[in-house]
Amino acid sequence: MKDHFARRALAVKRSAIRELLKLTEKPDIISFAGGLPDPETFPREELARIAADELRGHYRNVLQYGLTEGSLTFRQALLPWLRTQGLHLELGQLLVTTASQQGLDLLGKAFIDPGDVVFCDLPTYLGAIQAFSLFQADKVGVPLLEDGMDVDVLEERIREAKRAKKTLKAIYVIPDFQNPTGITTSWEKRKRLLEIARREDLLIFEDNPYGELRFAGEPIPSIRSMDTEGRVIMLVTLSKVLSAGLRLAVLIADGELMEVLVRMKQATDLCTSKLTQHLAARYFNECSIEDHLKELRVVYRGKRDAMVAALERYMPTDEGIIWTHPDGGLFLWVSLPEELDTDEMFPHTLEHKVAYVPGKAFFVDGTGHNTMRLSFSVSTEAEIDEGIRRLSAVVREELAAKRVGSVA
Amino acid sequence: MKDHFARRALAVKRSAIRELLKLTEKPDIISFAGGLPDPETFPREELARIAADELRGHYRNVLQYGLTEGSLTFRQALLPWLRTQGLHLELGQLLVTTASQQGLDLLGKAFIDPGDVVFCDLPTYLGAIQAFSLFQADKVGVPLLEDGMDVDVLEERIREAKRAKKTLKAIYVIPDFQNPTGITTSWEKRKRLLEIARREDLLIFEDNPYGELRFAGEPIPSIRSMDTEGRVIMLVTLSKVLSAGLRLAVLIADGELMEVLVRMKQATDLCTSKLTQHLAARYFNECSIEDHLKELRVVYRGKRDAMVAALERYMPTDEGIIWTHPDGGLFLWVSLPEELDTDEMFPHTLEHKVAYVPGKAFFVDGTGHNTMRLSFSVSTEAEIDEGIRRLSAVVREELAAKRVGSVA
Repeated sequence: MKDHFARRALAVKRSAIRELLKLTEKPDIISFAGGLPDPETFPREELARIAADELRGHYRNVLQYGLTEGSLTFRQALLPWLRTQGLHLELGQLLVTTASQQGLDLLGKAFIDPGDVVFCDLPTYLGAIQAFSLFQADKVGVPLLEDGMDVDVLEERIREAKRAKKTLKAIYVIPDFQNPTGITTSWEKRKRLLEIARREDLLIFEDNPYGELRFAGEPIPSIRSMDTEGRVIMLVTLSKVLSAGLRLAVLIADGELMEVLVRMKQATDLCTSKLTQHLAARYFNECSIEDHLKELRVVYRGKRDAMVAALERYMPTDEGIIWTHPDGGLFLWVSLPEELDTDEMFPHTLEHKVAYVPGKAFFVDGTGHNTMRLSFSVSTEAEIDEGIRRLSAVVREELAAKRVGSVA
Repeated sequence: MKDHFARRALAVKRSAIRELLKLTEKPDIISFAGGLPDPETFPREELARIAADELRGHYRNVLQYGLTEGSLTFRQALLPWLRTQGLHLELGQLLVTTASQQGLDLLGKAFIDPGDVVFCDLPTYLGAIQAFSLFQADKVGVPLLEDGMDVDVLEERIREAKRAKKTLKAIYVIPDFQNPTGITTSWEKRKRLLEIARREDLLIFEDNPYGELRFAGEPIPSIRSMDTEGRVIMLVTLSKVLSAGLRLAVLIADGELMEVLVRMKQATDLCTSKLTQHLAARYFNECSIEDHLKELRVVYRGKRDAMVAALERYMPTDEGIIWTHPDGGLFLWVSLPEELDTDEMFPHTLEHKVAYVPGKAFFVDGTGHNTMRLSFSVSTEAEIDEGIRRLSAVVREELAAKRVGSVA
């Protein structure tokens, strides 16, 4: 039946992470692999009360089909929270999506013809790579520096793509506590990216799953909040701030772009669950998301601190091993010496009952063999300490083995 | 920003029905337009109890990310019910989708390159037309007869498409109580469609939202249940049998087809809400879906009877006006004399406080100007009687006006 597949279907690779995660699910493994929110932060008591009430009292509404754009109640409930993030929006600028992965799918559908260029970080979010690959985008990677995308290299890549007569469509960025690195794009670079997008008439796809999880430093305005032309389409998910299982996010866009995105959404799944939308709407209306976020920030700061402290404590220091020190989010990023390969090292690490995600899958240019993503979100601080101890031991052994090898 | 759109995005038209439905939402209008399940049938008490219990006791699980393939618990819970429908399946043959519209999207993603031919009924489900249009399918319509697709015309269309060197991909059918007509495909025709698909190496996309809502006549085996090659991909939604707001369905496929569809699903929305999956799983495990379906069948049979009786009572009989007499589902289909146009007639009907869906949108060849879909699912029997009385009055007036016009 192989002949039946569409060309685009063959453009999407099986996710290496997906396969890996299956191996890391054993209870004795300390896993820094999955990018999951800490389940102990889910506001279950509030949601249980609201769910029973909505299902008993509003079953005609919440168990029925809803608007493709999303429930008015839910979108209305999000507006004040979005305002606190500098996003002054009207209902018509919000499209509810079945979490942000669907937002990425809709962006692909609406904007990407085969061969169209999308610029992204090296490394960048795997789910975006998959979504854009499905629409046969030409994904052009630009190195990510400590303060965001290397805009000089971006300029060079733009010139090259134009010389090659390619169609340039968009820049994809996760400015706050990026997945997979935890890196934050500086204010200057955000402005610069917007200027470049204006000059080259590119869209910006601004993905912001972690922005509200800042536990250190000062907030930086989103690119969307600086945009006066409707050039920036922003994705804001509730997966990390409320619950991943509700599958809820909003896509922020304007005018004709929004009209077409709504049409794409309709053909994609008609509408997002009204039940989950109304659970979240009432949570936002009746509970304090600000208080909840404060708690989350304390939890994740503690875990980041534990991970950074453990890395400082256990990792060999004289081998050019470096890691990021994120101001928010769920991840940090480790680069090992060039001679190590985190794909090859992975089985060895599993034997030592600790897991990470090898970095290569996040690079659209196939580099990154010596990098890894560590998530500090689901383990306890004690597990983080023990896990990093085990991981460091493996790194030490691997380095020793390589040296013996190279001496021999 | 128009230049930024992908070609596929321009292939999807704004849904006429969507715009119409907005006009029909006023409380004094009796609407036969929406294809919604009767909300009074939703098992709210059971779901409220289960939701509170799952959220309190299993928040770590139901509020977290889930498997792309769908929750094991949910898929397991569906197997016995699917067996009662002649579908003897294993877990790996089920992919949970965010309702069946997502199933259609995944089929488009996995199988349809621009220009690939998909054969479908004239008329057929609008959501399928939209999903396949998005992937730039060449949708070839085949007239629908009383017992299903006109297979002789299908054979002819196949020959034509082959002569034109097109790539033939699939036949899309809704064999039970089709949307929009309520027509059921006979057993002989199901076999014939499968034979043709085998001979021509086509896939069959078998969409079955209403099969369990049979309230008259004998069940006919699904095409999938006759398939020995994994050529039939079947979509089974819970939207009409449990709740549309949960956004839950399963896609049934095998082997490599399933592997690729799972990959498409991952890029599309990562996973379906585990909360809604677990609500449904426990409903299937703890309550009797069979008893629930029995009640639904009584409700919908009563409404169909009311609509058919009202049509017989009020519609002019001598004008070549005909309607279907479905054995299940939510819809029936009315054909008016050629000189009437149901798009043009619609505002007049709205003035008389009754609404339907003009049939043209369901025809991929632009025909069907004199047809309409009537849904009997949400109105009470008394509203059905009154609504058909109003509608019949409009038809009578329109016919009289046309005749005066043609005499003058």
